[in-house]
Amino acid sequence: MAYMLESVQKLINQLSKLPGVGIKTAQRLAFFILGMEEGEAKELGETIYLTRKKIRYCNICGNISEGEACPLCLDPKRDSATICVVRDARDVMAMEKIREYRGLYHVLHGTISPMDGIGPDDIRIKELIERVKNGIAEVIMATNPDVEGEATAIYISKLLKPLGVKVTRIAHGVPIGGDIEYIDEVTLMKAMEGRREL
Amino acid sequence: MAYMLESVQKLINQLSKLPGVGIKTAQRLAFFILGMEEGEAKELGETIYLTRKKIRYCNICGNISEGEACPLCLDPKRDSATICVVRDARDVMAMEKIREYRGLYHVLHGTISPMDGIGPDDIRIKELIERVKNGIAEVIMATNPDVEGEATAIYISKLLKPLGVKVTRIAHGVPIGGDIEYIDEVTLMKAMEGRREL
Repeated sequence: MAYMLESVQKLINQLSKLPGVGIKTAQRLAFFILGMEEGEAKELGETIYLTRKKIRYCNICGNISEGEACPLCLDPKRDSATICVVRDARDVMAMEKIREYRGLYHVLHGTISPMDGIGPDDIRIKELIERVKNGIAEVIMATNPDVEGEATAIYISKLLKPLGVKVTRIAHGVPIGGDIEYIDEVTLMKAMEGRREL
Repeated sequence: MAYMLESVQKLINQLSKLPGVGIKTAQRLAFFILGMEEGEAKELGETIYLTRKKIRYCNICGNISEGEACPLCLDPKRDSATICVVRDARDVMAMEKIREYRGLYHVLHGTISPMDGIGPDDIRIKELIERVKNGIAEVIMATNPDVEGEATAIYISKLLKPLGVKVTRIAHGVPIGGDIEYIDEVTLMKAMEGRREL
């Protein structure tokens, strides 16, 4: 852009670091922010910084937390013998939407991906093994149903089974509301394999 | 979402005020920010607030500015007898990309839109008339080629012509790189009307 105030250009550059925000979107967001009331822009900016400053990872499960341990790990009503293993904190939020699950979580902060140089030591597998050694009955692998997620689930299950813990994998199949016609073949195959008597 | 830290929820709420950012995108942005280095998040947050704080509108043309008058209005090399009228500051940036235009600007901060309750007094028309009274030779109407933009251009031209100033409208036609097959009829009609001898 030929003409741009330096301060506005800096704002655009900062905004374009956000995921899914290209240069055009960053410009749109920047001009929206310039059109905000000063107090609104202050609140937005402060919230970004102060929230990041306040949030850390739970020492136990790796979920986002304001204290050393997260509210889920500290909740005595949760079933502490069951751990659901997920890739990141967003997956915890997603799982918590189904209020049926009452166990704990373990956030890996990634999945094994040799292509991206992420090995087993780069994610929180050691921490999971330590937790499982302390009287865990079941570990549910809820990593994503993609190549990395499947490989990570299988890798971890091989490490955990010798410890005498039950390791399960969430079911793959046809999503509710999905259209059989448009479902990919691998999913359909998994759905057939996992069929149950009605 | 069933489970969410209050501070993170606040961040999501703040982010979802941005244009084009729904609740899902706001969640994605929030977790990205939580994954940033603390210093990075601080810089992003501070840039948002400090840039907004620093930016005001130019007293003369209404473009964004750090001082009372913007760099364009203060530039003695610009042709001060020509004013290009645009809807908002983003349009100034767009026009400045074509380095050919060397005149000044006038930012209306909107277009007349009775449907949205925006009348002539709600945009910077009076300020434009005052400027034109001080020796302006040509006013180029570069509002958008939509209903509001056209109506605003016509309304302003009727006010300015009695002042003896030349009022022009940017050309409508087939955009470069466009495909005749897919151009709408009104644009094609304008393109035919505005044809020139080769």
